[in-house]
Amino acid sequence: MSESDGVLGVAVIGYAFMGRAHSGAWRAVGAFRPELPQVRQQVLVGRDARQVDRAARRLGWAESSTDWRAVLERADVDVVDVCVPGHLHAEIAVAALEAGKHVIVEKPLANTLVEAEKMVDAARLARTRGIRSMVGFNYRRVPALALARQHVADGRIGEVRQVRISYLQDWLVDETAPMSWRLRRESAGSGALGDLGSHAVDQVRFLLGQEVTQVDGMTHTFVTRRPGERGTEDVSVDDAAWATLRTDGGAVVSLEVSRMATGRKNSLQIDVFGSRGSLRFDLESLNELWTCLDGAEFATRVLVTQPDQPYLDGWWPPGHVLGWDHTFTHQAADFLQALAQGEDPTPSFEDGLAVQQVLEAIERSGTHQDVSTPQPEVLR
Amino acid sequence: MSESDGVLGVAVIGYAFMGRAHSGAWRAVGAFRPELPQVRQQVLVGRDARQVDRAARRLGWAESSTDWRAVLERADVDVVDVCVPGHLHAEIAVAALEAGKHVIVEKPLANTLVEAEKMVDAARLARTRGIRSMVGFNYRRVPALALARQHVADGRIGEVRQVRISYLQDWLVDETAPMSWRLRRESAGSGALGDLGSHAVDQVRFLLGQEVTQVDGMTHTFVTRRPGERGTEDVSVDDAAWATLRTDGGAVVSLEVSRMATGRKNSLQIDVFGSRGSLRFDLESLNELWTCLDGAEFATRVLVTQPDQPYLDGWWPPGHVLGWDHTFTHQAADFLQALAQGEDPTPSFEDGLAVQQVLEAIERSGTHQDVSTPQPEVLR
Amino acid sequence: MSESDGVLGVAVIGYAFMGRAHSGAWRAVGAFRPELPQVRQQVLVGRDARQVDRAARRLGWAESSTDWRAVLERADVDVVDVCVPGHLHAEIAVAALEAGKHVIVEKPLANTLVEAEKMVDAARLARTRGIRSMVGFNYRRVPALALARQHVADGRIGEVRQVRISYLQDWLVDETAPMSWRLRRESAGSGALGDLGSHAVDQVRFLLGQEVTQVDGMTHTFVTRRPGERGTEDVSVDDAAWATLRTDGGAVVSLEVSRMATGRKNSLQIDVFGSRGSLRFDLESLNELWTCLDGAEFATRVLVTQPDQPYLDGWWPPGHVLGWDHTFTHQAADFLQALAQGEDPTPSFEDGLAVQQVLEAIERSGTHQDVSTPQPEVLR
Amino acid sequence: MSESDGVLGVAVIGYAFMGRAHSGAWRAVGAFRPELPQVRQQVLVGRDARQVDRAARRLGWAESSTDWRAVLERADVDVVDVCVPGHLHAEIAVAALEAGKHVIVEKPLANTLVEAEKMVDAARLARTRGIRSMVGFNYRRVPALALARQHVADGRIGEVRQVRISYLQDWLVDETAPMSWRLRRESAGSGALGDLGSHAVDQVRFLLGQEVTQVDGMTHTFVTRRPGERGTEDVSVDDAAWATLRTDGGAVVSLEVSRMATGRKNSLQIDVFGSRGSLRFDLESLNELWTCLDGAEFATRVLVTQPDQPYLDGWWPPGHVLGWDHTFTHQAADFLQALAQGEDPTPSFEDGLAVQQVLEAIERSGTHQDVSTPQPEVLR
Repeated sequence: MSESDGVLGVAVIGYAFMGRAHSGAWRAVGAFRPELPQVRQQVLVGRDARQVDRAARRLGWAESSTDWRAVLERADVDVVDVCVPGHLHAEIAVAALEAGKHVIVEKPLANTLVEAEKMVDAARLARTRGIRSMVGFNYRRVPALALARQHVADGRIGEVRQVRISYLQDWLVDETAPMSWRLRRESAGSGALGDLGSHAVDQVRFLLGQEVTQVDGMTHTFVTRRPGERGTEDVSVDDAAWATLRTDGGAVVSLEVSRMATGRKNSLQIDVFGSRGSLRFDLESLNELWTCLDGAEFATRVLVTQPDQPYLDGWWPPGHVLGWDHTFTHQAADFLQALAQGEDPTPSFEDGLAVQQVLEAIERSGTHQDVSTPQPEVLR
Repeated sequence: MSESDGVLGVAVIGYAFMGRAHSGAWRAVGAFRPELPQVRQQVLVGRDARQVDRAARRLGWAESSTDWRAVLERADVDVVDVCVPGHLHAEIAVAALEAGKHVIVEKPLANTLVEAEKMVDAARLARTRGIRSMVGFNYRRVPALALARQHVADGRIGEVRQVRISYLQDWLVDETAPMSWRLRRESAGSGALGDLGSHAVDQVRFLLGQEVTQVDGMTHTFVTRRPGERGTEDVSVDDAAWATLRTDGGAVVSLEVSRMATGRKNSLQIDVFGSRGSLRFDLESLNELWTCLDGAEFATRVLVTQPDQPYLDGWWPPGHVLGWDHTFTHQAADFLQALAQGEDPTPSFEDGLAVQQVLEAIERSGTHQDVSTPQPEVLR
Repeated sequence: MSESDGVLGVAVIGYAFMGRAHSGAWRAVGAFRPELPQVRQQVLVGRDARQVDRAARRLGWAESSTDWRAVLERADVDVVDVCVPGHLHAEIAVAALEAGKHVIVEKPLANTLVEAEKMVDAARLARTRGIRSMVGFNYRRVPALALARQHVADGRIGEVRQVRISYLQDWLVDETAPMSWRLRRESAGSGALGDLGSHAVDQVRFLLGQEVTQVDGMTHTFVTRRPGERGTEDVSVDDAAWATLRTDGGAVVSLEVSRMATGRKNSLQIDVFGSRGSLRFDLESLNELWTCLDGAEFATRVLVTQPDQPYLDGWWPPGHVLGWDHTFTHQAADFLQALAQGEDPTPSFEDGLAVQQVLEAIERSGTHQDVSTPQPEVLR
Repeated sequence: MSESDGVLGVAVIGYAFMGRAHSGAWRAVGAFRPELPQVRQQVLVGRDARQVDRAARRLGWAESSTDWRAVLERADVDVVDVCVPGHLHAEIAVAALEAGKHVIVEKPLANTLVEAEKMVDAARLARTRGIRSMVGFNYRRVPALALARQHVADGRIGEVRQVRISYLQDWLVDETAPMSWRLRRESAGSGALGDLGSHAVDQVRFLLGQEVTQVDGMTHTFVTRRPGERGTEDVSVDDAAWATLRTDGGAVVSLEVSRMATGRKNSLQIDVFGSRGSLRFDLESLNELWTCLDGAEFATRVLVTQPDQPYLDGWWPPGHVLGWDHTFTHQAADFLQALAQGEDPTPSFEDGLAVQQVLEAIERSGTHQDVSTPQPEVLR
């Protein structure tokens, strides 16, 4: 800690969707975990001076700034939390680590493997000096998923054989929905595969504690042209992706992600089938885990709001459900706890790189075989 | 507003369960509704100086105090939010209103009808001076229930005929669970009926916009003696209660509340059946509303996380669910909006009194008739 | 058995809804339980000679008849299965028992207590001669409910404290739906209370193995006038009914039945809460039972299609679900088994009478108390 | 029809699982659809004279036989229904068609492509003489799936883009479960892929009305050795299979089948995502279809028991659910209706062949790519 009062100064870079979510976590983490090092919301950083100043006041920050490099020099900033778009992650994160700041980077780690590898190098070097880093896969902090990982680790479902994981949204179903930066490869890097698939692959590694060793998959763009500001434009990223993965523990995983799944708003569904049980989760019912443990015949719907379940003792009595944004508070708390204990938080930048290596291998894979079926003379 | 900076100073009295929940709301309301008057978390009040000081720091308060009367005199306090146990509500709330402070009182309004009526008198007088008051039935701010009320008000389910409402918990199932202040009439006033039934009755009035005119009901204590600190003690409140209500709009409501409903943690379930549709809700799945509207044959599961649904435009993209504690942020925002517009917030103290009048009538009612069935000669 | 071939001759009286369902059971029972006495579908009885003849051929009967009294005299008829409307039950059933035939009577046992008592007398007398009788509460033969009863009897949920039972349909929601015999007291005896409430009360007695000793309730008709063939007519039965029951085992039961529950087609829902567990069932998901047993914290969704569960070993492999009409096949099998073992089948006519005594007591009970709430000056 | 009485004589070959299910259909079809040609359960055929005789009596057959060739010569047999194991299908079906009998063959059509093609040739030739044939994919007769197909055909979900289909069972989870003929390639032909995948591929073709044109997939055996009668044996079929399919209509389908999905008994789940809606089904909740139609935002749970839905007008009032075996009665009725109208029933033998061509292409496909992820120095 940089200051005599023992309070950690935090800077968040970015004040859009993720900057707002992370700000809420820094506001709430002290109430959630009073025993952890106290934090001070020191400075919010953005490009537009007026807007970032207004955001800072509303989101609980003491100051605002438009100069992230200057913020890295400040003695009253101990933690830098990077919430800007992916193509800016590498530059800021590497500089922050070099400046001796602990760093959190929102997922995905970077838009390219080259950048991600550079970040891993910087994190490894910084680690030797006691500087900590983490990538923000917040779904590891969903209580139900943390509980699921415990059950797997404790052998409650036996040896994991088969995993079904899908992350389905529907915001691109309408073919007249306009072109945007998210649909151009140069700005977004990837489509559903990178955005949703990264969460899915991280969960596979997290829940199983295994590495992905082989992949076969494909991506597809259903709506290939959309209206842009200057006429129709080509969509250059995928709308959906599919893959089967094999892990070093012998499990087979089927993965499917899509932005065209009509009726699904934010549905990350996971089934883990083991030799002695199974687990089931859906992000749209974030407080529930279906558990079939220790050779049981059927699954139990567990409402994950009990004080003895992960992250729950800092909140409310049983049955008082949490929301999506609570996961960021849990993430901030886990990060602070690692700092307090002088340990490296997880997931590491290496974890972030591993996810991107799997995604890239999926993009490169995939060969289909033709099938020729008879032309029936009768109507089906 | 008392201050030149146009920022409202808030004091919360109480820092236990409800004090923590309300503190979170005051921390978050600016991020949720930037366009509303800004608030300053001025002072947290409690009886134990050291503990309330520690709580104040962790929950985001500038100061702490052990003297609520002194706090009422402060010019930098505009809003007093009363989160202490029910038997202290009347004294503090009446004094705060007389001191010219806007007041929020956690539900139930008071433990006795006499106290509740006194509070209504004070609120009516204060209202003539532009001083606002509200009782904290936070479930009115569950987005799914606010949406349900809209559908009823818009006639989407026609004329409401039949309502089923139950609020079931299970924390008293174990007959060896110890005696506590909540199980003594002198301290708690009532058992499941007052604690859970108050939410249920408020929802009936809120959703239907109708008054309860007749009741028939009963209460019951399943475990009548529990281990106390000095030996076994009598339980003097109800474990469960049942009632049928009739409203001035011609609806019939069945109500059931219990702390003995094994397997249910916090299950407030509501079915509203109308002449052209129906609605269904369960607090354990807080982000969902089942809607059967406009004469439809079957119910649709609506995930209430769309930006055009109540309270959702201030949060996250579709499918990113909220938790139980977000309702307090909504409540704070609604209160601030009423202040900003010079209007009386709802639910009013009169609403709080009406709920208690219904509950008391339920306690007084109930006559059962004997049935004599044949003693079959065969085994059933 | 009357014949040398050891095959039981069956006659069904009535070929409408229930006659069709019972005919299907007699067709299928041999395939379901090959080890039971074989049956022969001897004769189907109805009033219209042409229609009953056509029905007999399609429903698998050897003959048809329009004279039920003559059928009672036939030596090749051993079992008489009464599927006509309730007001005809007593006459036919008593005559059949006197003629020495084993008798099944569709529920409810009769339309009046006087008739039901007469039937009980006849059944008791016949029993002394080895003549068997049963009332057709087929939901006792839903595998999930039979399993539920086992769990209760085995103490898996401890002492039963609280039961919630509702039977909701919606076929009368439309206020322009025409008048019919079911809505006139003289022909139907009762409305939702008799039709749906009888199933509900029978389930309470069946699942708990306890007698109802006290009731408090009410009935209500939401649509009091409906279009008849000769202009608008008064509806003289209830659309819905509510009650709380107390049992001789100390349980409290809330009961609600309705034909106005928009969106519910045939929803018999049962929650049984005990001191060590709970059970949950919905007839619209007939193959599922939610079980929370032996002090477990949460409920497990059991798919009741396993060969070791009640009635399942005669059907298909796990996961192959049964339908509503399979319950009649189970009922026929249970009846045949009782005959084979020289025992009285259940539920007995006494059981049928007990249900009607409870229903009548509900109709006679009910007193509501007025509530006067404040007229708020503010809008709610 | 062969006889003067206008009644069709039926022979079923086989009296095990499928023979029992088909027998039930022939018993019930007259009650279900009185307007169709009447049938006579003439003869049940099996290898063991005593057992088939006993089965015939219990399953409603007039006679039994051990000589299927002799049965094909009988003038009182019009329909031959083949329920024996797959490797016997071709010989019996071809002979029956040549003998001028209408033929139903249980799925899959045959164990090899060569046999299946021979059967298609025989069916085409017979068709020119007015002899009809059908393969028994009974899930086309699940009312909810028939309704789903209607919605797709009517354009209610727009252009189909993405389909998720899985068929999961768990009867092989236990690695000590014994070896059986189903786990040897020579007798079973295939494992989960053939058994479960055939239903899945048929549903894709049925629901979409499209042909599969490309596949990429893989199969896997998790438990490769199991205890046999003479010691441990190699399992020579797959436990699970995965594939992505492309159709001639531009849809992408992900398919997963398994006998190792702990906790799933018979779960055929289907999601169909279109440009204007989606559909969802699970065989374990056979009477439900989730529909999101005509651009709706969310899905409605439709209880498929309304008289205006497919197959329902011949059964019971709304809300009275059907079981798995009712689908065979619907199948028999559809077959009889085609005969009555002089049309070819569906699915045809060509449909059966098409399914097997897709399955074989899946078995031949599949190439995985290695992924090398970093070895993190920190623990995950």
